[in-house]
Amino acid sequence: MQKVISTAVIKRLPRYYRYLGELRKKEVVRISSKELSERMNVTASQIRQDLNNFGGFGQQGYGYNVEYLYTEIGKILGLDQEHRVVIIGAGNLGQAIANYGDFARRGFDIKAVFDVKPELIGKEIGDIKIRAMSELKEYVIEQKPDIVALALPKEHAVQVANDVVSWGVNAIWNFAPVELRLPKHVVVENVHLTESLMRLSYNIRAKQNEQQAGELAKKLAAEVKSESAVTKE
Amino acid sequence: MQKVISTAVIKRLPRYYRYLGELRKKEVVRISSKELSERMNVTASQIRQDLNNFGGFGQQGYGYNVEYLYTEIGKILGLDQEHRVVIIGAGNLGQAIANYGDFARRGFDIKAVFDVKPELIGKEIGDIKIRAMSELKEYVIEQKPDIVALALPKEHAVQVANDVVSWGVNAIWNFAPVELRLPKHVVVENVHLTESLMRLSYNIRAKQNEQQAGELAKKLAAEVKSESAVTKE
Repeated sequence: MQKVISTAVIKRLPRYYRYLGELRKKEVVRISSKELSERMNVTASQIRQDLNNFGGFGQQGYGYNVEYLYTEIGKILGLDQEHRVVIIGAGNLGQAIANYGDFARRGFDIKAVFDVKPELIGKEIGDIKIRAMSELKEYVIEQKPDIVALALPKEHAVQVANDVVSWGVNAIWNFAPVELRLPKHVVVENVHLTESLMRLSYNIRAKQNEQQAGELAKKLAAEVKSESAVTKE
Repeated sequence: MQKVISTAVIKRLPRYYRYLGELRKKEVVRISSKELSERMNVTASQIRQDLNNFGGFGQQGYGYNVEYLYTEIGKILGLDQEHRVVIIGAGNLGQAIANYGDFARRGFDIKAVFDVKPELIGKEIGDIKIRAMSELKEYVIEQKPDIVALALPKEHAVQVANDVVSWGVNAIWNFAPVELRLPKHVVVENVHLTESLMRLSYNIRAKQNEQQAGELAKKLAAEVKSESAVTKE
């Protein structure tokens, strides 16, 4: 039986992994769930619960072995396998993704970038040549990339996603601000920048409301105080 | 009293908003929670629950007025107020953010981009001039931007975040793969691309495991069947 892991846990795992990677670089051998929790802004019991989803890795009172936990979380995240990535769209965003050094270190190997613009085709991003979209079908069918990143305008994203899926791609990393409706066997991860900015905006507003409420409460308290002073006179 | 809204709800609101925006463009006047739910891949009761957090907007049996719901969710998201945004880092990612047309439409106005690289300073992204980092302090103190987007290497992100916060910035949109530790009054929204890719990788692995389990189950079932056939003979 496959255990269903909540998306909240899956969301935290990469953070654990990143942080354990930093500890590992600093040659830290062992860390308690308490220390880990303080650094991660998560409660210690949350960390224990999260890791228990995967059988747990700590010994009571001994904390976690950093190297071991790092490796095991890496396996859970599928980082022990190489992923060949193709990027569709060689605009700023596509280029930013292609140039992002962090990915290669994690086993995400950018293999090709495609674009429709004649002036971009043939140019290189790092050592990756930009190819014509007309070559995409053949490339995908032959090379069977593990992940296709969509960094193209939303008007074209849906069609391209449907195409590459019909050619055998099972995982889409979608940067276009559109909801993709793909067959159930396809894994989709969205990076919706506008939504991220809206969440920020929501939290700015919430903070403002909080502060206003605080100030109002203070003002009311002061008024009550001065009124009671008047009453006493 | 400020009501605490769960992050899951806050995560869904921008999606509702985006989708309602699409309906509005198509001049749809009214939508039932059932229809909305089908389009959004969320249960109808989830939608009702989410919106009830903000007082609810529907009438039993009448569904939601698209325009009204769009406007009200916009207000909840703080989109009725303009946000002046400054981007630190004019590399591919900074340029991608500066060029992203969707933001301006939502009231996020990119006012300035800063970089340290002499070859970039003075150049323009659209109609925004790239400024020198040495001018950042004066700019922030005078112009009081609402949001600072960090699109620079993680080695510098922490220092720059601390600096702009000390100069009065209260909201950070962080693209650097690093955890920022900032005073409580500061709102931070992270876009961690590597973590997003790791979640994708996790889900690819989970799907593989699921399929393998499925195949194994089939194989076992077939074996059991052929064994029972043998036994019967």
